[in-house]
Amino acid sequence: MNDIKKIIEELVKFRDDREWSQFHNPKDLALAINIESSELLELFLWKKAEEANKEKIKEELADVFSFAFLLAEKYNFDVMEIVLDKMQKNAKKYPIEKAKGTAKKYNEL
Amino acid sequence: MNDIKKIIEELVKFRDDREWSQFHNPKDLALAINIESSELLELFLWKKAEEANKEKIKEELADVFSFAFLLAEKYNFDVMEIVLDKMQKNAKKYPIEKAKGTAKKYNEL
Amino acid sequence: MNDIKKIIEELVKFRDDREWSQFHNPKDLALAINIESSELLELFLWKKAEEANKEKIKEELADVFSFAFLLAEKYNFDVMEIVLDKMQKNAKKYPIEKAKGTAKKYNEL
Amino acid sequence: MNDIKKIIEELVKFRDDREWSQFHNPKDLALAINIESSELLELFLWKKAEEANKEKIKEELADVFSFAFLLAEKYNFDVMEIVLDKMQKNAKKYPIEKAKGTAKKYNEL
Repeated sequence: MNDIKKIIEELVKFRDDREWSQFHNPKDLALAINIESSELLELFLWKKAEEANKEKIKEELADVFSFAFLLAEKYNFDVMEIVLDKMQKNAKKYPIEKAKGTAKKYNEL
Repeated sequence: MNDIKKIIEELVKFRDDREWSQFHNPKDLALAINIESSELLELFLWKKAEEANKEKIKEELADVFSFAFLLAEKYNFDVMEIVLDKMQKNAKKYPIEKAKGTAKKYNEL
Repeated sequence: MNDIKKIIEELVKFRDDREWSQFHNPKDLALAINIESSELLELFLWKKAEEANKEKIKEELADVFSFAFLLAEKYNFDVMEIVLDKMQKNAKKYPIEKAKGTAKKYNEL
Repeated sequence: MNDIKKIIEELVKFRDDREWSQFHNPKDLALAINIESSELLELFLWKKAEEANKEKIKEELADVFSFAFLLAEKYNFDVMEIVLDKMQKNAKKYPIEKAKGTAKKYNEL
């Protein structure tokens, strides 16, 4: 079994053991992703990137992934497919020759 | 090759083709995850969960995943491992018998 | 003295008593606003709007305001002026006759 | 009339002219604050604080303030009061002698 399928199975089991599916509508899952992303961000607040606590980053990033996988599961999205599809779109917005070495947004390239 | 390794390889290639590694310090990657999470959230603003546009959710969720995978790559985290580890910790904070059917936070259980 | 000037004076005093100005660059203040906004958001997670704890909302919203005022102070923005200016721009993006009674974004009107 | 009362009056008029009160429940207002905060944050992405565009910061910060004032209005909060009250609480969490010159969180002081 591939690893994403395996992770999602474990997350779904965790959720269903606790009967949390009733709370996990897509809107609240999107809230949860935002909340966890901010807890991750807080680890870098008032700090240089290299001063952040790596062990805590591991945990907060895991929380971001967990809710992102659970939202993907809700919609039955194939995570590899949606990421690769989006990369193709981004390749058009950010063609290599224009985007190379610059952090500008596509509408400023 | 497993899915996550494959996705990360593609994302790294995309990044390196554009020489964007210089911008991708962990702090700014954490910002990027937050920004993408909010673009996802915006799809639900002033709406019921089921009114949100599924095609757009696909794209914004893909962006969240992309930066989350790139941050994991920066630190050389194994995504499956960090998610399963965190789930074990959460299992202690949210034991089934206490957490079943309630959305309360662990410190209110 | 008007109330916004008074609030900012108090916040600046609090900050300077602790010599925190050195940490309060605009980028980190923007992070702080995001982090506090998410703590506010968390009070609504898995809940209906009316189930959220009003006393906690008071505190988290106060934190959002505090960092927003401190960022305004950094740039010497006049809060009333920037809010009223933005409202004028929004009035063009959302003319009453088109925007009345709909939550659509301006580019979908 | 004081500044905050004046700003809120204008925001409420703008909202009511468009009959948007029906969408502005506190939960979605909290979403809106988060979304605007992230648009503010995006102005700093991949950049040093001083490279961000000041005119755009003005607009995005104005949006954060607008929804924060509208949420305060929903609950009938007095903005000056809630900010000063929270500052008093923070003064206990961050006593000057301990917090001076350090960016540590209160639970690490």
